[in-house]
Amino acid sequence: MSGADRETLLWLSLLPCLYLASLCSAEQGLEFPSFDGKDRVLHINERNYKKALKRFDMLCLLYHEPQPAHKGRQKQLQMTELVLELTAQVLEDKDIGFGMVDSQKDAKVAKKLGLEEEGSLYIFKDDRVIEFDGEFSADTLVEFLLDVLEDPVELISNPMELRAFERMEEDIRLIGYFKGEDSYYKAFQEASERFQPYIKFFATFDKTAKHLSLKMNEVNFYEPFMEEPAILPGRQLSEMEIVEFVHQHKRATLRKLRAEDMFETWEDNLDGIHIVAFAEEEDPDGYEFLEILKDVARDNTNNPELSIVWIDPDDFPLLTTYWEKTFKVNLFKPQIGVVNVTDADSVWLDMSNDEDLPTAEELEDWIEDVLSGKVNTEDDDDVKDDYDAVDREERHQSDDHDDHGDDYDDHDDSD
Amino acid sequence: MSGADRETLLWLSLLPCLYLASLCSAEQGLEFPSFDGKDRVLHINERNYKKALKRFDMLCLLYHEPQPAHKGRQKQLQMTELVLELTAQVLEDKDIGFGMVDSQKDAKVAKKLGLEEEGSLYIFKDDRVIEFDGEFSADTLVEFLLDVLEDPVELISNPMELRAFERMEEDIRLIGYFKGEDSYYKAFQEASERFQPYIKFFATFDKTAKHLSLKMNEVNFYEPFMEEPAILPGRQLSEMEIVEFVHQHKRATLRKLRAEDMFETWEDNLDGIHIVAFAEEEDPDGYEFLEILKDVARDNTNNPELSIVWIDPDDFPLLTTYWEKTFKVNLFKPQIGVVNVTDADSVWLDMSNDEDLPTAEELEDWIEDVLSGKVNTEDDDDVKDDYDAVDREERHQSDDHDDHGDDYDDHDDSD
Repeated sequence: MSGADRETLLWLSLLPCLYLASLCSAEQGLEFPSFDGKDRVLHINERNYKKALKRFDMLCLLYHEPQPAHKGRQKQLQMTELVLELTAQVLEDKDIGFGMVDSQKDAKVAKKLGLEEEGSLYIFKDDRVIEFDGEFSADTLVEFLLDVLEDPVELISNPMELRAFERMEEDIRLIGYFKGEDSYYKAFQEASERFQPYIKFFATFDKTAKHLSLKMNEVNFYEPFMEEPAILPGRQLSEMEIVEFVHQHKRATLRKLRAEDMFETWEDNLDGIHIVAFAEEEDPDGYEFLEILKDVARDNTNNPELSIVWIDPDDFPLLTTYWEKTFKVNLFKPQIGVVNVTDADSVWLDMSNDEDLPTAEELEDWIEDVLSGKVNTEDDDDVKDDYDAVDREERHQSDDHDDHGDDYDDHDDSD
Repeated sequence: MSGADRETLLWLSLLPCLYLASLCSAEQGLEFPSFDGKDRVLHINERNYKKALKRFDMLCLLYHEPQPAHKGRQKQLQMTELVLELTAQVLEDKDIGFGMVDSQKDAKVAKKLGLEEEGSLYIFKDDRVIEFDGEFSADTLVEFLLDVLEDPVELISNPMELRAFERMEEDIRLIGYFKGEDSYYKAFQEASERFQPYIKFFATFDKTAKHLSLKMNEVNFYEPFMEEPAILPGRQLSEMEIVEFVHQHKRATLRKLRAEDMFETWEDNLDGIHIVAFAEEEDPDGYEFLEILKDVARDNTNNPELSIVWIDPDDFPLLTTYWEKTFKVNLFKPQIGVVNVTDADSVWLDMSNDEDLPTAEELEDWIEDVLSGKVNTEDDDDVKDDYDAVDREERHQSDDHDDHGDDYDDHDDSD
């Protein structure tokens, strides 16, 4: 490989993932797009931001750090712009504008527009702003923006559509029963716009509502994986009542990590800690573990201290081996542990006995130990501070093998 | 943007999709890998191929066209290598080797190894070869290779795991009931290795089998979306009997397009034609349409002429707008049509009446018209050759608006 190629390679070293069109194919119909080199992303400043807002149905602004001095970070910023360029190209016919806002040079504009978090993408649609803080890939962005283009409220009008609604257990969903497009429906619709596309809103105007035992103008809120909905207080709701209810309840007892808001979910930890469960839904073992987890979540849905992040490794192939290394777990099998998001230090429940997954009760006991602090990521960092140390030492001595005889495997490199 | 940056941009124009790590995050635990610039992909030739085969548990060889003279194609080949490099980096601890084989320079090696299709990746594991002809992205490749590393037969040992098995309706699945790891099980296992990871094999050694009414040593074959399995002939099966049965039945009546074998599926058309259905499973409309499709597929499962490719646009965000442009359809709604894979010419069933999706019977009638040639992509290319032309003309005249009054919308630019 020549020196120049090597440089290009290094340039590309910032690319965590590369896509390629079909390498050779006589058939037509599956051509992946490749970036055509045309500039579509605007550099937003005080002079052009108003015009940009007016010109497009939807404007997506990436709020980014100032041009960095470090060459690697410069390239990274350029790559970000390229991701936006490709997204803009793919969505060319959808009347969506794209722009970059420099947090230093364009500080005034940023303030006017209310941009706050560097690295986030802000989507301006009508008079609301949607923040995107997910995986910054063209795939995820395109899918996200196509979702934003859809109607924020989906109508459910027959039993089959109701079944589709009932199957979406992974999502936070609200459903309302209205006479038609009256003022109560409008309030519901306006509330929906504030959460689109993260939280799904459905409405029905007909007898489908009876299957859900919805009364007229009533709204039900379904937490992910819960069978029974929460009924919103009062029957005729204002936009703000709905919005407030959603804000209060949106951190679910069990929530699935999704590419479109993965960093936001990760930021929303409880005291710097996440209870993380890895389970492949497509795998019999993973499915079984997930069913146990759901039982535990259903039993504890009223505990505001508890929020388990479920990660399906199939959704994040590029992170799987990174997680295996960082957390020292085998992700071919289900796992549950506590992760400290400050240093990625973690403790995992020992499920090395291949035959038996823990029961819901065992899992609940372990979770209780986590919530009480008995199981935590710090204990082994300094064993002398460990109130449980003697107990642990004793058990170590009575065991033939080291860590695996313990209640949990502690995987921390730092001590 | 400087000239040099522009060149880099053009260089990158071959990249259909770019990934980026978290742009800024104080939290740890979600770091996407970026390519570290280290060479891990081998250039395979007559001198080193045997050693490479010996050295790794698994060896992945990309069989590629000779170094092209065209600069764009050169870069594309380099990008392919980069995808492999990143994949190799991510899977570094899994003892997988990666290499490139030039179809011209390394023709002899390629012949010895049995490499045939340029652009395919061949995976050597034990003494078998698995061909990968899917989306060439690091995501898809990593997920695919992790699947290949798993055991080819999954054991089902309790009712919950059985439920997981029953839910996998999208996949071709085989399940066998055996006494234990005896010779009949071994034959099943060896057959499974020939189809891993495309076709899923399960086995049970216990009373779980009764729920499936499996007799000892019996194997059941589930076509995607079918409720009743096909029972393999005879009860005690040899590896070859299983392999042959799978080969005979593997083109399903309804099959979902998957990233890991999308090009292979597309190549496996019937006389250059695919019946393609677009439906978002997550969407109430899409779900409803899919249920109708499944009914049609179940009614026609014995028709070898019929194989419908279901595409969920959510699985291919970067292709969605390309398909909308190429086929001139709105993919926010379900669609079904006939696509000619030679020129991507297509005809779509008119479902513009928003309220009503076609019934299973209407869909069956349309499919019959497709299979009989009455609905096809060529009719309008030269209306004079259209045996149905008079009939169509008449209908055109009696309609107020042009194409949309027809039974189907024909979206072809070439005439």
